[in-house]
Amino acid sequence: MKLLVKKDDFNKGLQSVQKVAQNKSNNLTSENGLLIKALNGVIEIQANDYDMSIKTIIPGIIEEKGEAFLADPHILELTRRINSEEITVSKQDADTQMMIQGGNLKYQYLTMDPDDFNEVEVVEQGYSQFMTDSITLKDMIEHTAYACAADLARPIFTGTFLDVDGATISMVATDTHRLALKTAELDAPVSERLQAVIPSRLLSEISRQLPTDMPVPVQITAIRNYLAVKFSNVYIKTRLIEGQFPDYQRVIPTSFSCAVTVNRTEFTGAVERASIVAKDAQYNVINFVMADGQIKLTSQDPDHGTVEDFVPCKMEGEELSISFNGKYILDILKHCHGDEISLQCKENSPLLVKDLEEDRCVFVVTPMRTR
Amino acid sequence: MKLLVKKDDFNKGLQSVQKVAQNKSNNLTSENGLLIKALNGVIEIQANDYDMSIKTIIPGIIEEKGEAFLADPHILELTRRINSEEITVSKQDADTQMMIQGGNLKYQYLTMDPDDFNEVEVVEQGYSQFMTDSITLKDMIEHTAYACAADLARPIFTGTFLDVDGATISMVATDTHRLALKTAELDAPVSERLQAVIPSRLLSEISRQLPTDMPVPVQITAIRNYLAVKFSNVYIKTRLIEGQFPDYQRVIPTSFSCAVTVNRTEFTGAVERASIVAKDAQYNVINFVMADGQIKLTSQDPDHGTVEDFVPCKMEGEELSISFNGKYILDILKHCHGDEISLQCKENSPLLVKDLEEDRCVFVVTPMRTR
Repeated sequence: MKLLVKKDDFNKGLQSVQKVAQNKSNNLTSENGLLIKALNGVIEIQANDYDMSIKTIIPGIIEEKGEAFLADPHILELTRRINSEEITVSKQDADTQMMIQGGNLKYQYLTMDPDDFNEVEVVEQGYSQFMTDSITLKDMIEHTAYACAADLARPIFTGTFLDVDGATISMVATDTHRLALKTAELDAPVSERLQAVIPSRLLSEISRQLPTDMPVPVQITAIRNYLAVKFSNVYIKTRLIEGQFPDYQRVIPTSFSCAVTVNRTEFTGAVERASIVAKDAQYNVINFVMADGQIKLTSQDPDHGTVEDFVPCKMEGEELSISFNGKYILDILKHCHGDEISLQCKENSPLLVKDLEEDRCVFVVTPMRTR
Repeated sequence: MKLLVKKDDFNKGLQSVQKVAQNKSNNLTSENGLLIKALNGVIEIQANDYDMSIKTIIPGIIEEKGEAFLADPHILELTRRINSEEITVSKQDADTQMMIQGGNLKYQYLTMDPDDFNEVEVVEQGYSQFMTDSITLKDMIEHTAYACAADLARPIFTGTFLDVDGATISMVATDTHRLALKTAELDAPVSERLQAVIPSRLLSEISRQLPTDMPVPVQITAIRNYLAVKFSNVYIKTRLIEGQFPDYQRVIPTSFSCAVTVNRTEFTGAVERASIVAKDAQYNVINFVMADGQIKLTSQDPDHGTVEDFVPCKMEGEELSISFNGKYILDILKHCHGDEISLQCKENSPLLVKDLEEDRCVFVVTPMRTR
């Protein structure tokens, strides 16, 4: 094998597969590592672990075809620092060493038998398929996936639920204390309803790779236990979580006794200040009293002191005193961007939060019993 | 006590004492925490642990005099986020709660008995005293203190040696494998030679506080077991390490068989690349061969591969092959700023490194035996 590639293209390809190639939790098999393959007229870089498979094509000149299977530890760290725009990657078929050259650098790299690498199989057909774009998809992931559970006790909640019904795409995640839901419309409906629970950490890795300079088309194909995501020169296949995702529509409250509209920046500042003291005490409890055109926040740490703060708001309905975990409220506020947000609730019931400039996104938080 | 202060002034004062106030390793006594004192017509903030004492004066209006002793955990984190330029700090003499108010925020803070705080005593006279400026002092600390030992086995090497003889000030630190020395001239000589070994972590804390926008005068006073540093509104006293610092002049090599001059950026790049592979193997060994107008670098990790790189250099004397710990070489290069650096050495002897634009600073590294 002998390849001439631009440093930036090579590094971009390595960066795409890096997380999968370095997956230390799957170190049981020889599948760890990455494959550079130039057999069919294109230069492919592949990596594959039990959870995710990724294949990316990079531009470059194939002077001699061939392939190499590498354990990954330093390759990207080193090629990023090469002092040259052009890199030569070469390996004699009989040799176990691959050579990377650029500038004055020669890097001899021990390789493994390519037959031991489990190649990424591209599946073109699934039971359902749709097109979206990279910015819409990234936006949906970033507004929902964070709300999933970190706790592996109930695996279904460590995933984000993708539900595509007709032309409506929904993503929802919950850890049972809070929930985030975002919906959008597709250009074309799906023929068959698609429902899949995707591990949130894999979804975040997909999100990291989606181009955001401008929207590029993304094709999503649902196969039995896998979901395939295809965009630009990247093909990713991800494992799904088995099981039934609970009916999230039932969790979203619909009747309220109190509705307020508040400036996002002011409210965020007050919640942050109250959290500083609340976070040392158990559960990060902040009490919110909506009354007299303002939200009054109080929090306390018995060892150090108490914080009291308020922000003005527009209010409809009855006065209300209710407590929430400050971390959950801050998590939501981080995902709002408009000038104003709306809070709707009633006594001892979940809070519904909406960004007033983002009507297809809702957040729900369960209150805390403080006495 | 009732004080009106600007948020920025208050936060700057808190930030000065924060590290000392939060010193968790000295949690044995009630000395932990900070004192706000407005008894003598100025607002002082003080903190004191076994190693370091600090006192700073902040501007503000004293409406009622008084003092308060606080455990520190959240105060700065909270006052930084106050939504107002002005802060009121108040405490009734009989009350144990201090109140911080700013914007809509009220923060009630539990205080302790001020009599339990060990006040910072200002010592004006010592056995020796000199003046320098904040930029010179910071520069000396940053070029030397990093080279000390982290290992507490030989405490003397965890400090930086300050040696002021006549009008010459020297600072030197070593972990016995490498050494950094910087000297400067004072405007006025000291009457008595000053020699003190200052714990490097305290020196770094002093360095962090030294103003660098423009040089401000710094007065340094040596008392028996303490050193006092005074600048702007800040007074810092630091513990010294007892014992005799070894004769560092004997460690600096003076005869060489090979001298090279090399571009700093190019050389740093090559050492970085060689280090990526070397760092996984033991001791981070990089071999340097100076010959034929170039420095050739090689490093290897038996499990993954080998790196070979070279940089052109100007060379005098004989060819040389010698190995060093790559981390030590990189540490030195991080503290050089000029375009070119000089390397001087001979077989199996320490390497002398100089920044060609910084003639009062030298670095020494001991070579490694590779076979």
